[in-house]
Amino acid sequence: MTSHALGIEQMGWQRCQQILALARAIRNRCHRLPTLDRSVALAFFEPSTRTRMSFELAACTLGCRVMTFSASGSSIEKGESTADTIRTLDAMGFDAIIIRHSASGAADYAARFVHTAAIINAGDGCHEHPTQALLDVLTLLDVLGSIEGRRVAIVGDLLHSRVFRSDIALLRMFGAQIGVCAPPLLMPHLLRDDIERLPDAASAMAWADAVIVLRLQRERMSSGLVPSFADYRRRYSIRYEHLDATRAIICHPGPVNADVELDAALIEHERSMIQRQVTNGVMVRMALLIETLAPDCVEQILSL
Amino acid sequence: MTSHALGIEQMGWQRCQQILALARAIRNRCHRLPTLDRSVALAFFEPSTRTRMSFELAACTLGCRVMTFSASGSSIEKGESTADTIRTLDAMGFDAIIIRHSASGAADYAARFVHTAAIINAGDGCHEHPTQALLDVLTLLDVLGSIEGRRVAIVGDLLHSRVFRSDIALLRMFGAQIGVCAPPLLMPHLLRDDIERLPDAASAMAWADAVIVLRLQRERMSSGLVPSFADYRRRYSIRYEHLDATRAIICHPGPVNADVELDAALIEHERSMIQRQVTNGVMVRMALLIETLAPDCVEQILSL
Amino acid sequence: MTSHALGIEQMGWQRCQQILALARAIRNRCHRLPTLDRSVALAFFEPSTRTRMSFELAACTLGCRVMTFSASGSSIEKGESTADTIRTLDAMGFDAIIIRHSASGAADYAARFVHTAAIINAGDGCHEHPTQALLDVLTLLDVLGSIEGRRVAIVGDLLHSRVFRSDIALLRMFGAQIGVCAPPLLMPHLLRDDIERLPDAASAMAWADAVIVLRLQRERMSSGLVPSFADYRRRYSIRYEHLDATRAIICHPGPVNADVELDAALIEHERSMIQRQVTNGVMVRMALLIETLAPDCVEQILSL
Repeated sequence: MTSHALGIEQMGWQRCQQILALARAIRNRCHRLPTLDRSVALAFFEPSTRTRMSFELAACTLGCRVMTFSASGSSIEKGESTADTIRTLDAMGFDAIIIRHSASGAADYAARFVHTAAIINAGDGCHEHPTQALLDVLTLLDVLGSIEGRRVAIVGDLLHSRVFRSDIALLRMFGAQIGVCAPPLLMPHLLRDDIERLPDAASAMAWADAVIVLRLQRERMSSGLVPSFADYRRRYSIRYEHLDATRAIICHPGPVNADVELDAALIEHERSMIQRQVTNGVMVRMALLIETLAPDCVEQILSL
Repeated sequence: MTSHALGIEQMGWQRCQQILALARAIRNRCHRLPTLDRSVALAFFEPSTRTRMSFELAACTLGCRVMTFSASGSSIEKGESTADTIRTLDAMGFDAIIIRHSASGAADYAARFVHTAAIINAGDGCHEHPTQALLDVLTLLDVLGSIEGRRVAIVGDLLHSRVFRSDIALLRMFGAQIGVCAPPLLMPHLLRDDIERLPDAASAMAWADAVIVLRLQRERMSSGLVPSFADYRRRYSIRYEHLDATRAIICHPGPVNADVELDAALIEHERSMIQRQVTNGVMVRMALLIETLAPDCVEQILSL
Repeated sequence: MTSHALGIEQMGWQRCQQILALARAIRNRCHRLPTLDRSVALAFFEPSTRTRMSFELAACTLGCRVMTFSASGSSIEKGESTADTIRTLDAMGFDAIIIRHSASGAADYAARFVHTAAIINAGDGCHEHPTQALLDVLTLLDVLGSIEGRRVAIVGDLLHSRVFRSDIALLRMFGAQIGVCAPPLLMPHLLRDDIERLPDAASAMAWADAVIVLRLQRERMSSGLVPSFADYRRRYSIRYEHLDATRAIICHPGPVNADVELDAALIEHERSMIQRQVTNGVMVRMALLIETLAPDCVEQILSL
């Protein structure tokens, strides 16, 4: 059976742990990386730069053949369905299909149509984005040393965020205390009781060891879900003055809307982990690809 | 002289035979594939997913460097001509240029502008799509054992189909009996007398050992060339009930318009060869690239 | 410190000389090329075919991993800034970022945001396009033998041309006599006094050893900057009859507007160097990549 990577719960604690350990080993580069004689399809039904290039760089660095399917300029314009595309890529012989899709559940759905390829979720609608959670946790572990008992606040449009869903699943596995902060109409319902509600960005910064700031989609601003831009900025933006008398480090999945959810001056601040997250993203994706496509290599890399 | 692959007649019986033998040898993988130190340009003036990714995977698996030229986001938007593009790719030093174009005859035209590159036709207008015919015939040979004397019906929009033109040229070389079935306004004129006219999909399924279903372009449906959609479906769709008391296997170049030319329930049916065609497509294209770019390797692969 | 390639002056005489020497050595292929274990990002904020494919082929031939970032279908559509994109590519670990941008100065600007990657300018607005100048000079050296004291005329829309700016900077370093020819509203101000003003294409052809014809952007024709099309063609096009009683070779960066700035019949004429420029473009870019990413290999290649 192939080992899909569809979401954090589906992957499980042990596998996530191993991927993080592998990512650290790869980063240390105390050994040469294996060359995987594998073919990887990037099936991007939704535009993306960062995630696509990060996966592509990870796969190419491991010696994989990487081909990109993107929805524009493709058979999708001829009405080809997602199921058809996945079946076709599987029949072509790709060993892994990395899927990005605007529909929640698309990765699970795709997994029903493959015989041999492993499906890797690179973000599906408002559902999951597991490699983002893995890179976020790797970054927190790098800087905080451990996550058990640490306070991590997630701030922004939580309702529509796949990063939020993957992050809380993985952070909970690691024993973090989780706090949330969002405008009322962007706050998910039915959150567990052990999650701390934080009224504004200033409280989140004061409460947390780490704040994960999420991107505010511009289209939300005119949707009525968000108060006025000025009001959003006043209550929910992480601002330069919040650094005083707080210790929290700042993460953001990128790209940042500068001066919307995060002050431009914070992007390259020493308390910002944004560049480290990007670097860790490549490491985590290399680790996931090795773990998925060449499980025999895992022991050897970890033992070095 | 470089050996272009422009169409089935131009390639000839012996070369087509050899490519099919090579494709089978590659599929058996009883030997390691050669690594071709060659550069291949995919010059796609018309969008395509399947054919592009199939050629790209074939070329990359053989170790070629593959670069994609696509009409959008390119100099075509600055008014660059097809001839200019081909001349430029040739001057850059590409060893093969795989061309897809909306104009019938584009591959032959392109061949006039190269000095060293081999031109490979990946579909030109309503003219030819030779690798599709090769993969169709490989699939028929796999399942039927031989083609000589077998009945192959082609159903759908024959008039505008490059697949139809390449298929009948290659099937004739292999001695198949050919049947055709299409609405009157989508039936080519001047077909040879030895081609069987079949009035509807049910007759085609009853007559044939294999039915090749072609895609109905959605734009034809509102063009007046096709009767009403309901009428097309009643007479020319391959439907689930046609499986009863018939033996024909079903091929389709994909992507399928589900429930238009073919019932959705047939796409993954055991009588459908669609996934096998996709797999064979990669094999045939690897074989063509080896035969074109590394003719010295052919004997060695075939002798194994 | 990384060695960016932002413009001809910034690169300097010695480095340009070395790149040209390397390009010639690579072209002679009297030795195997090194395999660079490096990752290269093509950050194309502006569409391009020729330059992108030329760099991509150069990098792939050297064994680099090459990934393309293009503005369409990317985070740029989400409002990501140029600085963000460059910071992200740098943090991912790319060794070189080849940038093409519509804004003059974009390459210099990008260089402010990298820690480890080398920035290579593939054309920024109306500012510079250094590899085009290098391939132009390599072509002139091939055909004329030397450039010192030779007359090179540049004809067309000089005002908006990055090729013009890079060409005159490099030609001056090589001691060429430079002539210019353009409609009054497309002539740059403040040209040095030692530059020859040539009133029309016929005079340019009569005066020069080589004429570099620049592309007339179609949008200029309706902008009022250019006289009527008929008038432009009469005075500033290089036409077939100009070959009589002149000796100048003809260069053009491509793609040509046939019968606008250059007669269609001249594109493949023996006096046209257009195809040679394309071939040299790949050589120059391979040389630049080796010089930038693997300086240790330079001596070895040159000594062969």
